[in-house]
Amino acid sequence: MKILEDMIKEKGQVINEDILKVDSFLNHQVDPVLMKNIGLEFAKHFKEKNITKVFTIESSGIAPALLTAQELKVPLVVLKKQTSNILDRNYYQTEVRSFTKNCSYMLTLSQKYLKESDNILIIDDFLANGEAASGVIKLIKSANASIAGVGIVIEKSFQPGRTKLDKLGYDIYSLARIKSLTNNRIEFLK
Amino acid sequence: MKILEDMIKEKGQVINEDILKVDSFLNHQVDPVLMKNIGLEFAKHFKEKNITKVFTIESSGIAPALLTAQELKVPLVVLKKQTSNILDRNYYQTEVRSFTKNCSYMLTLSQKYLKESDNILIIDDFLANGEAASGVIKLIKSANASIAGVGIVIEKSFQPGRTKLDKLGYDIYSLARIKSLTNNRIEFLK
Repeated sequence: MKILEDMIKEKGQVINEDILKVDSFLNHQVDPVLMKNIGLEFAKHFKEKNITKVFTIESSGIAPALLTAQELKVPLVVLKKQTSNILDRNYYQTEVRSFTKNCSYMLTLSQKYLKESDNILIIDDFLANGEAASGVIKLIKSANASIAGVGIVIEKSFQPGRTKLDKLGYDIYSLARIKSLTNNRIEFLK
Repeated sequence: MKILEDMIKEKGQVINEDILKVDSFLNHQVDPVLMKNIGLEFAKHFKEKNITKVFTIESSGIAPALLTAQELKVPLVVLKKQTSNILDRNYYQTEVRSFTKNCSYMLTLSQKYLKESDNILIIDDFLANGEAASGVIKLIKSANASIAGVGIVIEKSFQPGRTKLDKLGYDIYSLARIKSLTNNRIEFLK
């Protein structure tokens, strides 16, 4: 997606060869026009898949996921990051490790918002090690629901997440694929 | 806002006389059509105020705030809840106490996204004790920027937040004002 790649080139900050900071338009400050275009692009790609709900994880996935759900005319479900187990049988939970933040959390979803008949599109802002997306997939599978695909705003293709999800056979659609961040330079996969 | 009050009446769950659960359309599952209408309503109310940015707090405020920012054609800034102090002079921080969750967090904002010339509209999902909104106001004031007003999706008018913010003299616009939750009944202020 050219306007996204252009914005990453113009405003992204390479912190080190693993970390790209995009908090001027995606994470901390959010550009609503870019989000609208991202929503349109995901909806165009996944529109024939009979999606019933869009799932994302709080909080940076919410903006792109909301505008995708709006275009697809389906509800959005925001999976919560809890610090502890909820001892309540009405919730699905799975542990997710964040390499970037060097911590873990319990990805949490009320069973009310996922039925066996659901066909879920997962949207997230970043794909790096694939831990978050794998956690969401695990929760959806534990409800015997279907996964229509995964939409990622920025994929760090040099980290193992993409390969891991490809192996599971899902339709993974990343709007910007970063090949490397070495030498303080952002290089895209073409 | 009638469609919001109707949805609260139909889908809201009174947990006790202080807590209303609206996680089927606002917090956990999010209704994009309702969010669109909320964005339109806030934009209509505040459109003459020369707003330069919309501020909200992660994560339940993001959906209504994003669609308000989209209508007003300004950026959204999502204030972060950090668990600890960032010892970095490029950030504004203030401690906020959450009565509902009985914990506190450091409300955090990069100085890059707030200038003295800014005129900020604050949007949040709930107004209860006013701790979160007061924290945002404190950060904005510490940058000598202006506050155009506060937009709240659901105000619990029987708790002290509204009175506290009214005393500061801001334009507070709440889309649904709840007078009481006693006897398992949702009563609105008219």
